[in-house]
Amino acid sequence: MAVLFDLAAADGRRFSPHCWRTRMALAHKNLPCEARATRFTEIAFIADGHQKTVPVLDDDGKIVGDSWAIAEYLENTYPDKPSLFGGASGRALTLFVQDWAIATLHIGLINLIVLDIFLSLSPADKEYFRTSREKRFGRPLEEVQAGREERLPAFRQSLQPLRMLLSGQEWIGGEGPLYADYTVFAPFQWARLVSNFPLLEEDDIIRAWFERCLDLYDGLGRKAQMAG
Amino acid sequence: MAVLFDLAAADGRRFSPHCWRTRMALAHKNLPCEARATRFTEIAFIADGHQKTVPVLDDDGKIVGDSWAIAEYLENTYPDKPSLFGGASGRALTLFVQDWAIATLHIGLINLIVLDIFLSLSPADKEYFRTSREKRFGRPLEEVQAGREERLPAFRQSLQPLRMLLSGQEWIGGEGPLYADYTVFAPFQWARLVSNFPLLEEDDIIRAWFERCLDLYDGLGRKAQMAG
Repeated sequence: MAVLFDLAAADGRRFSPHCWRTRMALAHKNLPCEARATRFTEIAFIADGHQKTVPVLDDDGKIVGDSWAIAEYLENTYPDKPSLFGGASGRALTLFVQDWAIATLHIGLINLIVLDIFLSLSPADKEYFRTSREKRFGRPLEEVQAGREERLPAFRQSLQPLRMLLSGQEWIGGEGPLYADYTVFAPFQWARLVSNFPLLEEDDIIRAWFERCLDLYDGLGRKAQMAG
Repeated sequence: MAVLFDLAAADGRRFSPHCWRTRMALAHKNLPCEARATRFTEIAFIADGHQKTVPVLDDDGKIVGDSWAIAEYLENTYPDKPSLFGGASGRALTLFVQDWAIATLHIGLINLIVLDIFLSLSPADKEYFRTSREKRFGRPLEEVQAGREERLPAFRQSLQPLRMLLSGQEWIGGEGPLYADYTVFAPFQWARLVSNFPLLEEDDIIRAWFERCLDLYDGLGRKAQMAG
């Protein structure tokens, strides 16, 4: 069985958005895997020791890192399983959705929940995370997250293209979920697992889509432990 | 030959982003058309008189309005011609690109160039445009456009997903242009045709892609008259 090296918080919670992309992709392809708990500070010890980030997939000895590379590997290696992209054009357009998710959601969310992420980590990871992230932001994590209520309306507004799309179709992929759905689901799942901050309005159409995503594959996403 | 009712400025310039989507889609399908100059105030007289917006396509008596409906009509009616979407998944994902283009580009651009658009219109259209747009904005067009230099950095930042995508592939559609390219090209072409305001930095990768789009189909986009 394939092994997915999966980022884990102090209590075992699997919160990494990049890893969630891969977990959903493996489930979409109907490929069972062991999602092995990995701390930030354990990444250097995976397989050949050359991996710098998770997820890392060990598919019966074939080692693949980086969530997009893994998605391409799965699509090419298992072409008879359900497609993640829906063809070459779908693959190209999925990259646009992913770039949007990274530019809008990852960056938008980190500014809203970075301290919540920190608080969920194991002691060794806390030190690594605070040091690396404060270097990136140039200020304490507490300051990055401060005043988030005032920044929430702009974040919600930035989701408008997704809201427009989902007003006309159930999934980003159209009739059924595709990797494009997982790539947007993943950062929302990240936030759900480390933070209680209410990102979306109760009646936001994106919420209903997110609930549908949580239900996929026997509730794979929903079973993941939430922020307490 | 098909007739495309195409929005025209006072001097005949064809600036409507919605019409540009359709012109590029027709060229992609290798379908010749007469792009007939139509003023805002002439829309009510097209065909059966039930059309409220342009583009409107008259394909040998079959009347189709709305750029997305026209794209779907062309894809379904001419399946043996080059595909606009690349399959069902591509169609669904193209809608996300279009929703992003509308939420980010149309709304971002109108706030930067609305007065430039007004100034390009014919006298009768000027009155219609000012009245309808000032009602929508709740203030004079001059005020909407004022201070645009200060708002330019945020607009440029909002294009980051497109920039990320184009750093790895030539076209939004991947190896070649698809409707997804045209749906993003169209609002940039709109701006090019009515305004001299420098929207993008000289070395922005989006510029190189836009130039490639202008070259498509014997320079269809490039031949269109620019803002003087």
